[in-house]
Amino acid sequence: MATAATLTITDLTRRVRAIFQKAGLSVAQSAAMARVIAAGERDACKSHGIYRIEGCLRTLQAGKVVPDAEPVAVSDGSAMVRVDARCGFAPLAFETGLPLLAERARMLGLAALVINDCTHFSALWPEVEALAERGLAGLALCPSYSAVAPAGGLRPLFGTNPMAFGWPRPDREPYVFDFATSVAARGEIELHRRAGRPIPEGWALDAEGAPTTDPERALAGAMLPFGGHKGSAISTMIELLGGPMIGDLTSAESLGVLGSTSLLPRHGELILAFDVQRFAAHRPGDPLAQAEVLFDAILGQGARLPSQRRFAARARAEAEGIPLTAAELEQLDRFERLGLDALP
Amino acid sequence: MATAATLTITDLTRRVRAIFQKAGLSVAQSAAMARVIAAGERDACKSHGIYRIEGCLRTLQAGKVVPDAEPVAVSDGSAMVRVDARCGFAPLAFETGLPLLAERARMLGLAALVINDCTHFSALWPEVEALAERGLAGLALCPSYSAVAPAGGLRPLFGTNPMAFGWPRPDREPYVFDFATSVAARGEIELHRRAGRPIPEGWALDAEGAPTTDPERALAGAMLPFGGHKGSAISTMIELLGGPMIGDLTSAESLGVLGSTSLLPRHGELILAFDVQRFAAHRPGDPLAQAEVLFDAILGQGARLPSQRRFAARARAEAEGIPLTAAELEQLDRFERLGLDALP
Repeated sequence: MATAATLTITDLTRRVRAIFQKAGLSVAQSAAMARVIAAGERDACKSHGIYRIEGCLRTLQAGKVVPDAEPVAVSDGSAMVRVDARCGFAPLAFETGLPLLAERARMLGLAALVINDCTHFSALWPEVEALAERGLAGLALCPSYSAVAPAGGLRPLFGTNPMAFGWPRPDREPYVFDFATSVAARGEIELHRRAGRPIPEGWALDAEGAPTTDPERALAGAMLPFGGHKGSAISTMIELLGGPMIGDLTSAESLGVLGSTSLLPRHGELILAFDVQRFAAHRPGDPLAQAEVLFDAILGQGARLPSQRRFAARARAEAEGIPLTAAELEQLDRFERLGLDALP
Repeated sequence: MATAATLTITDLTRRVRAIFQKAGLSVAQSAAMARVIAAGERDACKSHGIYRIEGCLRTLQAGKVVPDAEPVAVSDGSAMVRVDARCGFAPLAFETGLPLLAERARMLGLAALVINDCTHFSALWPEVEALAERGLAGLALCPSYSAVAPAGGLRPLFGTNPMAFGWPRPDREPYVFDFATSVAARGEIELHRRAGRPIPEGWALDAEGAPTTDPERALAGAMLPFGGHKGSAISTMIELLGGPMIGDLTSAESLGVLGSTSLLPRHGELILAFDVQRFAAHRPGDPLAQAEVLFDAILGQGARLPSQRRFAARARAEAEGIPLTAAELEQLDRFERLGLDALP
């Protein structure tokens, strides 16, 4: 029986990589998965950490993802880089396209990375952070599968449709936000259900499309978009740009193909990269210094910048390692030993 | 004394053009202003119709805008088109850049129009609609001047920072949204003040940074972003992309330069254009047909698409003309006769 322990980021990455290799993923796919999942744990972003492994393995076991897919990137001299994920997981597809995306953005000021046919489970902040490390601002978005009703609607249609934005800051962590366009995450409703507490008004509808504060009814119904009709419009935009425009699935189509919200959805993703210095060229002032004045003004009135808790957790993990519970370590052991056979 | 009457769109456009020429604007500037203002009236979007003329004239009288500015567009073969508005009003700058933006987007799949140093008063929907007419999806955003506190903050910092998105639809009006990233428009708070009614909770802070439902206190304080910290993050993104990145002013800087919220702000604007067909090329299906399935699903559950009231008003105006009150016609007469001397 494992006991609680602290792992270095490197050790955790190696163990997660071993789990995916044992489960049949190629070395390259496993390594990309491990980097993203270890980054989630490093940032104390538990909902995107080792908690995700089981869902990935279940989707693999169901035959819904190609374990040794080799993503193919194409850059045709335009502002669009396309990566065909070949029905593999998203992280390796992103890593495959990133250098080309950065190169195109530097060349043209602005470029887009289209990822098609990827199985998606990860947060989007690792992607906009990778762009910010290269001095690029980034905007990433994707559909997911139907779980959110449009404002004024009755039934699930949109996904939780996340969007993330990153802005480079000299000698410090970037400005980054990454959020679902639903009011709350499904996991938060689930936590209320377990605790026997009602959810706040405005979070969800029941299966008949009526507003509800009962988490059980909410889970059988639909979540609502953040910010009323404005958030609903943004979620529609994410469906359009990250679905039809890039020749990939909307959230409704993704759920239709998959038939279940318990497996990971397959769809596309759109990531825009902006070369800040090229956009600002020939204009007075330094864009990054000017942005710092804005950040100082936000902080100066007691408001926060997003992602600060993540960055604080990251600093702790880098200094002291990542604390894992006995149950988490037990699960890692089991997956590492048994691969897909560890699944219930 | 004028009496209420109905004008054709063409007649209204001609009268507004005459007003701006009388006030000293060049023919080209006047024509672009008239097109945008008449479009506002045509769509029954009164807050961006002839109501705006006085503010434009006041800003002109204050010497804050160059009446005969000739915007200069530069396309350097990259994905960025730059228009120097030369301190004129925004509409002519946009019209100057539009053909180049569309050409670049078709060539590269994706392109950005940067407008610098423009005096801004117009809605953004005419711009994304102009792109949709050319078969392009568009995203437009700009800062304004400080009026909105960041979520968790106390004082005005962000502008009402609008964003607009357009998606082309075959043989019908495009999918378009255009909204401020504040919960409510300043005008709505003003209407509550006049009616002696409290404003809803969550709209505003008083001058000390405390939540208030008193419209008078709210007007002396700060508006709040829509959607809590998520809307606040989007508003920050708009400041960064439409300010520092394009070498132009943040909302705080714009207010600092201007010294007054009663004049129109001068700042920049960013407009992205996406060639939907190029993005979807070599993928199965037709992106526009796929998007129609999404729109049908939204409407099919009783939710609405944005801008439908505007489009209905437009159809009425095109068939029957634009009804104006006696007071509105009186004002048009006075401005047309007296130019800047008509200002109080």
